[in-house]
Amino acid sequence: MEKIAVDMDGVLADVYEQLFAMDEKDFGKRKTWDDVAGKSENETFPRIRDYLYKEGFFRTMKVINGSQPVIEKLNRAYDLYIVSGATEFPLSLSEKQTWLNEHFPFITWQQMVFCGSKQIIQADIMIDDHFKNLNFFKGRTSILFTQPHNAYEDNGRHRRVNNWQEIAEILL
Amino acid sequence: MEKIAVDMDGVLADVYEQLFAMDEKDFGKRKTWDDVAGKSENETFPRIRDYLYKEGFFRTMKVINGSQPVIEKLNRAYDLYIVSGATEFPLSLSEKQTWLNEHFPFITWQQMVFCGSKQIIQADIMIDDHFKNLNFFKGRTSILFTQPHNAYEDNGRHRRVNNWQEIAEILL
Repeated sequence: MEKIAVDMDGVLADVYEQLFAMDEKDFGKRKTWDDVAGKSENETFPRIRDYLYKEGFFRTMKVINGSQPVIEKLNRAYDLYIVSGATEFPLSLSEKQTWLNEHFPFITWQQMVFCGSKQIIQADIMIDDHFKNLNFFKGRTSILFTQPHNAYEDNGRHRRVNNWQEIAEILL
Repeated sequence: MEKIAVDMDGVLADVYEQLFAMDEKDFGKRKTWDDVAGKSENETFPRIRDYLYKEGFFRTMKVINGSQPVIEKLNRAYDLYIVSGATEFPLSLSEKQTWLNEHFPFITWQQMVFCGSKQIIQADIMIDDHFKNLNFFKGRTSILFTQPHNAYEDNGRHRRVNNWQEIAEILL
């Protein structure tokens, strides 16, 4: 069975929705996709570091549309792991695990990986929204999940998808 | 630079010392190495599940003798990661990170991995006290760190070490 490593933030958990809401609360106006596309999250949201360190940030994220049924099917067809950068934000460790248990209850603790760098991860397929993770990946297929920060970037090495339906078409 | 994956429990953190102390408190007599060698931790300590779920268990472990100076040197010579099974015990996630920050302050968040199964880990060298982790490892060198539970077992596939001085001799 092939191994698949699935990122959380920006792939399963809707980071931008959370950032948009907190940024709007601080600055009075909700940013649009066009405001943020092609810029890093740090450029886009001046107070992002405060948000990421805030209790509840990772616990209360919305689930990205369409991810649950596809993950459930992938989980039967592949040796699936959720691999999430978490150690940079110590609060996020338990919040992320609780979040996964709530929204993806069929994912067992054996399938969860909370790390810093993903350069130590070995799998056949990786789904991620960050080039910094995909560029080091040595498996057969690396899939870039579109998020505003990567919207206008392409190094030709990864297969871009815009939603979970496209992932289902490629992998199922 | 070669990648090295170092386990925490039973390699950096002295699990048996913690279990001996808690078991003695419950049953009035401190077990010896001979009482526990060759048996799994579950066989040895009747209340181990309670201990592992107890707040503070992972936070207050003693550091295994000799590990700090050798890890500090390995950290300069290798691309070093601490890879620890943690997701089975949700409290352990933040306790383990805090413990690492206290006792190995030169280890950055980028180098920490908290997981369930280690089958997704890819490195050149792995140091661990459990066959269940080492047997799946595909790197060049797997090192079995002696602990009572593995003391009389040998499948001929891993290099056994009894202390950190022996690791230094092999790897530095």
